[in-house]
Amino acid sequence: MDYRIEKDTMGEVKVPADKLWGAQTERSRNNFKIGKPASMPLEIIYGFAYLKKAAAYTNCELGVLSEEKRDLIATVCDEILEGKHDEQFPLVIWQTGSGTQSNMNVNEVIANRAHQLAGKKIGEGDKTLQPNDDVNKSQSSNDTFPTGMHIAAYKKLVEVTIPGVEQLHQTLERKSEQFKDVVKIGRTHLMDATPLTLGQEFSGYASQLAHGLKALKNTLPHLSELALGGTAVGTGLNTPDGYAEKVAQQIADFTELPFITAKNKFEALAAHDAFVESHGALKQLAVSLNKIANDIRMLASGPRSGIGEITIPANEPGSSIMPGKVNPTQCEALTMVCAQVMGNDVAVTVGGMQGQYELNVFKPVMAANLLESAELLGDACVSFDEHCAQGIEANNEVIEKQLKNSLMLVTALNTKIGYYKAAEIANTAHENGTTLKEEAVNLGYTTAEEFDKWVRPEDMVGKK
Amino acid sequence: MDYRIEKDTMGEVKVPADKLWGAQTERSRNNFKIGKPASMPLEIIYGFAYLKKAAAYTNCELGVLSEEKRDLIATVCDEILEGKHDEQFPLVIWQTGSGTQSNMNVNEVIANRAHQLAGKKIGEGDKTLQPNDDVNKSQSSNDTFPTGMHIAAYKKLVEVTIPGVEQLHQTLERKSEQFKDVVKIGRTHLMDATPLTLGQEFSGYASQLAHGLKALKNTLPHLSELALGGTAVGTGLNTPDGYAEKVAQQIADFTELPFITAKNKFEALAAHDAFVESHGALKQLAVSLNKIANDIRMLASGPRSGIGEITIPANEPGSSIMPGKVNPTQCEALTMVCAQVMGNDVAVTVGGMQGQYELNVFKPVMAANLLESAELLGDACVSFDEHCAQGIEANNEVIEKQLKNSLMLVTALNTKIGYYKAAEIANTAHENGTTLKEEAVNLGYTTAEEFDKWVRPEDMVGKK
Amino acid sequence: MDYRIEKDTMGEVKVPADKLWGAQTERSRNNFKIGKPASMPLEIIYGFAYLKKAAAYTNCELGVLSEEKRDLIATVCDEILEGKHDEQFPLVIWQTGSGTQSNMNVNEVIANRAHQLAGKKIGEGDKTLQPNDDVNKSQSSNDTFPTGMHIAAYKKLVEVTIPGVEQLHQTLERKSEQFKDVVKIGRTHLMDATPLTLGQEFSGYASQLAHGLKALKNTLPHLSELALGGTAVGTGLNTPDGYAEKVAQQIADFTELPFITAKNKFEALAAHDAFVESHGALKQLAVSLNKIANDIRMLASGPRSGIGEITIPANEPGSSIMPGKVNPTQCEALTMVCAQVMGNDVAVTVGGMQGQYELNVFKPVMAANLLESAELLGDACVSFDEHCAQGIEANNEVIEKQLKNSLMLVTALNTKIGYYKAAEIANTAHENGTTLKEEAVNLGYTTAEEFDKWVRPEDMVGKK
Amino acid sequence: MDYRIEKDTMGEVKVPADKLWGAQTERSRNNFKIGKPASMPLEIIYGFAYLKKAAAYTNCELGVLSEEKRDLIATVCDEILEGKHDEQFPLVIWQTGSGTQSNMNVNEVIANRAHQLAGKKIGEGDKTLQPNDDVNKSQSSNDTFPTGMHIAAYKKLVEVTIPGVEQLHQTLERKSEQFKDVVKIGRTHLMDATPLTLGQEFSGYASQLAHGLKALKNTLPHLSELALGGTAVGTGLNTPDGYAEKVAQQIADFTELPFITAKNKFEALAAHDAFVESHGALKQLAVSLNKIANDIRMLASGPRSGIGEITIPANEPGSSIMPGKVNPTQCEALTMVCAQVMGNDVAVTVGGMQGQYELNVFKPVMAANLLESAELLGDACVSFDEHCAQGIEANNEVIEKQLKNSLMLVTALNTKIGYYKAAEIANTAHENGTTLKEEAVNLGYTTAEEFDKWVRPEDMVGKK
Repeated sequence: MDYRIEKDTMGEVKVPADKLWGAQTERSRNNFKIGKPASMPLEIIYGFAYLKKAAAYTNCELGVLSEEKRDLIATVCDEILEGKHDEQFPLVIWQTGSGTQSNMNVNEVIANRAHQLAGKKIGEGDKTLQPNDDVNKSQSSNDTFPTGMHIAAYKKLVEVTIPGVEQLHQTLERKSEQFKDVVKIGRTHLMDATPLTLGQEFSGYASQLAHGLKALKNTLPHLSELALGGTAVGTGLNTPDGYAEKVAQQIADFTELPFITAKNKFEALAAHDAFVESHGALKQLAVSLNKIANDIRMLASGPRSGIGEITIPANEPGSSIMPGKVNPTQCEALTMVCAQVMGNDVAVTVGGMQGQYELNVFKPVMAANLLESAELLGDACVSFDEHCAQGIEANNEVIEKQLKNSLMLVTALNTKIGYYKAAEIANTAHENGTTLKEEAVNLGYTTAEEFDKWVRPEDMVGKK
Repeated sequence: MDYRIEKDTMGEVKVPADKLWGAQTERSRNNFKIGKPASMPLEIIYGFAYLKKAAAYTNCELGVLSEEKRDLIATVCDEILEGKHDEQFPLVIWQTGSGTQSNMNVNEVIANRAHQLAGKKIGEGDKTLQPNDDVNKSQSSNDTFPTGMHIAAYKKLVEVTIPGVEQLHQTLERKSEQFKDVVKIGRTHLMDATPLTLGQEFSGYASQLAHGLKALKNTLPHLSELALGGTAVGTGLNTPDGYAEKVAQQIADFTELPFITAKNKFEALAAHDAFVESHGALKQLAVSLNKIANDIRMLASGPRSGIGEITIPANEPGSSIMPGKVNPTQCEALTMVCAQVMGNDVAVTVGGMQGQYELNVFKPVMAANLLESAELLGDACVSFDEHCAQGIEANNEVIEKQLKNSLMLVTALNTKIGYYKAAEIANTAHENGTTLKEEAVNLGYTTAEEFDKWVRPEDMVGKK
Repeated sequence: MDYRIEKDTMGEVKVPADKLWGAQTERSRNNFKIGKPASMPLEIIYGFAYLKKAAAYTNCELGVLSEEKRDLIATVCDEILEGKHDEQFPLVIWQTGSGTQSNMNVNEVIANRAHQLAGKKIGEGDKTLQPNDDVNKSQSSNDTFPTGMHIAAYKKLVEVTIPGVEQLHQTLERKSEQFKDVVKIGRTHLMDATPLTLGQEFSGYASQLAHGLKALKNTLPHLSELALGGTAVGTGLNTPDGYAEKVAQQIADFTELPFITAKNKFEALAAHDAFVESHGALKQLAVSLNKIANDIRMLASGPRSGIGEITIPANEPGSSIMPGKVNPTQCEALTMVCAQVMGNDVAVTVGGMQGQYELNVFKPVMAANLLESAELLGDACVSFDEHCAQGIEANNEVIEKQLKNSLMLVTALNTKIGYYKAAEIANTAHENGTTLKEEAVNLGYTTAEEFDKWVRPEDMVGKK
Repeated sequence: MDYRIEKDTMGEVKVPADKLWGAQTERSRNNFKIGKPASMPLEIIYGFAYLKKAAAYTNCELGVLSEEKRDLIATVCDEILEGKHDEQFPLVIWQTGSGTQSNMNVNEVIANRAHQLAGKKIGEGDKTLQPNDDVNKSQSSNDTFPTGMHIAAYKKLVEVTIPGVEQLHQTLERKSEQFKDVVKIGRTHLMDATPLTLGQEFSGYASQLAHGLKALKNTLPHLSELALGGTAVGTGLNTPDGYAEKVAQQIADFTELPFITAKNKFEALAAHDAFVESHGALKQLAVSLNKIANDIRMLASGPRSGIGEITIPANEPGSSIMPGKVNPTQCEALTMVCAQVMGNDVAVTVGGMQGQYELNVFKPVMAANLLESAELLGDACVSFDEHCAQGIEANNEVIEKQLKNSLMLVTALNTKIGYYKAAEIANTAHENGTTLKEEAVNLGYTTAEEFDKWVRPEDMVGKK
């Protein structure tokens, strides 16, 4: 392979000649061979592109960067955002915990690419832009990386997670309406209970997601606070006056998202509680979705020896050995995602709790976990919606049969004959394998007419 | 021991003669010998007392319970809330997952105590109140236990957790103000960095708690929603018209807290995402407090061979073998509480995710964990505040010495001579064990006068 | 209340006159009002009693403690182990992370009680024993507390957890044998699958617990290593020659458990990976038990509209509103315990990971969580065994009906006519609501005779 | 793009013409657009390659597969293991929880590639091999996927994790020896304590890893048990006699690892406690490594205002804004890996606990998390070892200075003058800012000579 020589404050480094990165990126590549290469999420790199461009504009406006340099930086950032340089960011999550090396990766790529745009050859002639003095001007890894994290996370949540969950939420609402007259047996403790409608059952699922969405949205303001302007330790050393507010506004303009400058920069560098907070809401959604998906696969179980009250779409052959088998695969994919999100929540917690003094050095791992959870949840909700939820149908024949059998319809008699006599009816019917009505009449607690009037499933489901 | 005979729908049970509970409580005592007795939190019993009284009032108002029965129930509930019957609730967390047996424990105690209040002897004569038909009227375990959980949790959060965290927050704010002029070395990656004030450092801690309090308060609306009125499966079977809204209002009146009836009762029985949500915020506070407490013990470390920039109160001898040793014990108690809260968060998650059909049967474990976390965090913040935070003082001599030594003051030169020359100065001083100024002059990058003008720690801390 | 004055190296403290504890215990009571009082597990206090007695014997044998003092200490330790002084240990888990104050609590109680045994009045005359110099001789909190933790944990595991799990394991083995000829439908993905016997199903449960028990036993050697002899930082300062080995042997003798001295005392103070290891095995058991208990409640679900293949004992009325309802309450108690254990595992992990330099100061929280998990799992297995597992019976009628219906019996034809034709038979039968045999013959893939010969559930279950 | 038509039991599917996969793979690609494509770990695909080849050999030996088919299958498997078909496995983790679609992906690729090897064009002519009847003969997804998981996990643990941890362990052992005479101050509760040697400190780290390695190796036997031979539900339906044992032996031969057939196939399909067990040991290692890495960065902190007792290699510029800064980046990468592993442990737990009836459908998520943890830990240990641990040096000047200052050297006087007088000396010296010796003499508790004889740090570290 061809190499060129790049330099940093520690000396010379050989870098593959066809790559835009510089010395520090190459050092990191060599020093951190941990897991798959290039695991640092591209979303964070794009977050950097937004903020580097915003910093360049702000620096220029405040008189510390020339318009020419501003435009060069901005042009490369736009190219990065168009996905033209994805292969120039080879670093891993498992590097320095401040993400310094990914910040430098971005700085180096911008500087070298700007050199090209200025018509020069990388490694030849005076540098058009200095990675540290120009591209990184008025910045530190310590405030840029968290800014990149926040931009990436906020975008992912509002572009992938929330729309995905909302799509599923709407389907569940529609199903709740569709099934509003399907009276079925309820089950508590997995045991037969008093009836409700299938629509009511689905309304509970929809309500869970509505609460979860609200909880997630509650966390966005904290996430909208950007560290940029704090530089090394939060004091804003080496930034021009007014920089922090202006640069946040630039980022808000470029991303069209309501970012603001963090009120307290010391927290913004030393703690990432905003990530803990947002991921907590993702975990709540995972808890909800796990319940919903598990219910749906239990309700759809069978086809002949399960609960079988609903049918779900058959999307693919279910078994490599059992011919004709169809499985609730979307439920399985979704609940696996939920398991991952619950695990990721602990990873984020463990990272978040270990900040020390002026810096939390678990930034990359926290960011990667939140981005993964946000994407998986959003994607999985869409997949589950399109390939399962939308196609759910009531299996009315089964539902009706199971409803009629239920001994728990006896509960309607509580207010007529009292809990204790009602219990006697149910227990006797259970022992004898008979119907409630037979035993109610036999025991002399109701007449047949009273029984028929009082025990009507359709009257036991409240406002449908 | 003396016994009397109590009955339920399954038959007769011997109950200790001096106890107010009945057959089902006794069955549960015998069937669930798991862990310490009486582990079901009393706060939940008190939550039941509020709701049983509220249900009695509402039932009476809606014409399904006599005033006489209402008043008997209310009187016993008041006695319970006064702590007069604490020893009548012997059941454990590890019972049925709907908490049915604790609901029945309350029903039985109220019924038997009412019998006494009516001038009769327990076990003799017709029952003054029926546990199921009167005390439990218009109720099910499935809606009462979550209601009791919500009342208990809400009260604990607003009476213990939030005041405790706010008390510590205020102290940290005061310390931030007190130390606003103490310029000290910053540390990132645990390594010497550019300066900030000790007040700024504390402002970060205060800001973390402010965000955490906001996050916790964001969860209260979900927690204010009560399941009562849903009865067995959420349909409200066997409740009179208007019951759910009225009973929630009664509970709000009795507790003076803003409880409302849950909009969707199916969710309210089958899922406890509100607990997942609130506990997520407690976990966030634990993450913040762990960082703060760990920083404080590192800053206070020494007395001679540590960082030693602050002193904390010496509350007790620290060692049974090392004479004169004083330790950051409040930091340790607080971080242990944080570890517990992080663990409890997973217990709540695991319980919350496993609801099935119309019921989540992890109610007691979820409730117990949230109550424990809420109490421990509140108590630990007060303890930490009173025995540690309030007494923190700056160790100015140490702070000044460490500040002056710092090679990272060189950062101020970035905007004057560029990052790369500044790095050369710092590296040379590090290698030679000299000062920045010496090397800056030696290398010819600044004059002595320039250095003194440009490198002033007190000018490097931004707006103090 | 009456008080007496006690002293420590910090000065005088007022202590309730009727209590045996001294100044440092009282300081801790006042400085750590966090959660319920006396939450420090008594098992750890008993662990201390063993080790204090062992230390006294060893110190005497090695010539640094008189026989008289040895006997006094030993007598009080025996009293403690008999449970005579349980109310003398009022401290909480949430104290100093080394447990120093509980060590001093024990030292003070022993010294004061010895003073009484010597015929004197506490607080009067020269101290018969000095808490630090005599009772704590050759010890530090830093090596005694972990020793007490290990003794307590080891005992709990071998006396409660392992016997409890083994009891349940044996029942599951017996059930596996009892049900070995009950051929039933299998279910994968919750969907109908090829048959197996109910006994095979239970053999899987038994096998899980057998593996779990082996995993738990694998962790005992690490737990058998005692820190005692390391004193303050692991070097054994202020211990006589040969002390560490001898004192471990004494503890082994007194407890009749195979304790040995830790090979590396620096680890033994600074890390509690042995607790992480043992708790990891408890968590594995929780994972297994959660699966087993959940299966059993699903198999027992009904009575009329569930799976209903087995029946479990009806131990108590299941519902306060639904008469005659019986629920799988033991499954619920057990799975709630599992949720707690999974949460506790994270608490232990978070505590274990944060040791610093020569000491881990999360000892009490790690110990309390492991002891709770160990006790809950052991107790819950016994409760589940006695009130559920032993009474499980096959519901043969239901089992047979569901078996015959199954379309997955078609799998037996794979080796005769190939997967693809077999799938066609199953799919057609499913669509038409017909039997496999009808469609096999209709499609011309088998004769009726062939079908009857090839598709025999009892031949599809392998070695039963 | 060009397509060809592939078929399965559900009908026709368009597949990219240049790909070897078939209908079911393509269905899965379209139905599960969740997260990054091709996230299913290649290690599992390779595990499948081993087992498909082993199954072919066994089937042939037992007379149910021709030699010709066997050899075709084996040839493709070898090609897969050589990495020649990596791009033919496009599926994601988030598919069906049994991994059926990845099993079919392998079956389809093998069948189509065999068709090519037989000199034919894919999609034309009779299939040379049937994916289900030939490649999948005597197999089900339900027993192949867990077999693939076990092979992949076992290989990763013994080829990456264990060697990586062992390499670091050896370095720590060497450092312990290297530093065996460096007497330094100990620190407990982060506070100055009695001395030990730097070698002793490192011996504790080495001991942690030795215990962790032992714990991990303890889990290998469970992981060596293979499900293959259980087919759909564990009964071994459609397998020839002796198949399970022989195929496990074949896998053992091909992989040169001690795989055996699982004694209980029902557990092997329905539960993955072996993964919970092995991951528990990985989590324990993460706990250990977090402590070690955190200690090392604290000990190396500075360079001028930290603890500074050791130096670690300077591998890269540490800051984009602070010139000359060097950071403990390897410690940070390693502790981030530890955070991930702790999170993954919960993901594995949550997956493991939710098996239902005859199948656990969290197989892919459990496998992916264990493989990630195993790889990250192994890689991170090597990286930490080579770029940090090997280069650790003692900073003797600092060590000596801090040692001499320590007030805790007074502990040596306990056995001479008693704990209480020793405490008085230490407290007085602390208050007066004097030396222990001055105050010992002033207070009249020792002569200067006695002090010098009794208080010798090098005598306080036990056997070095």
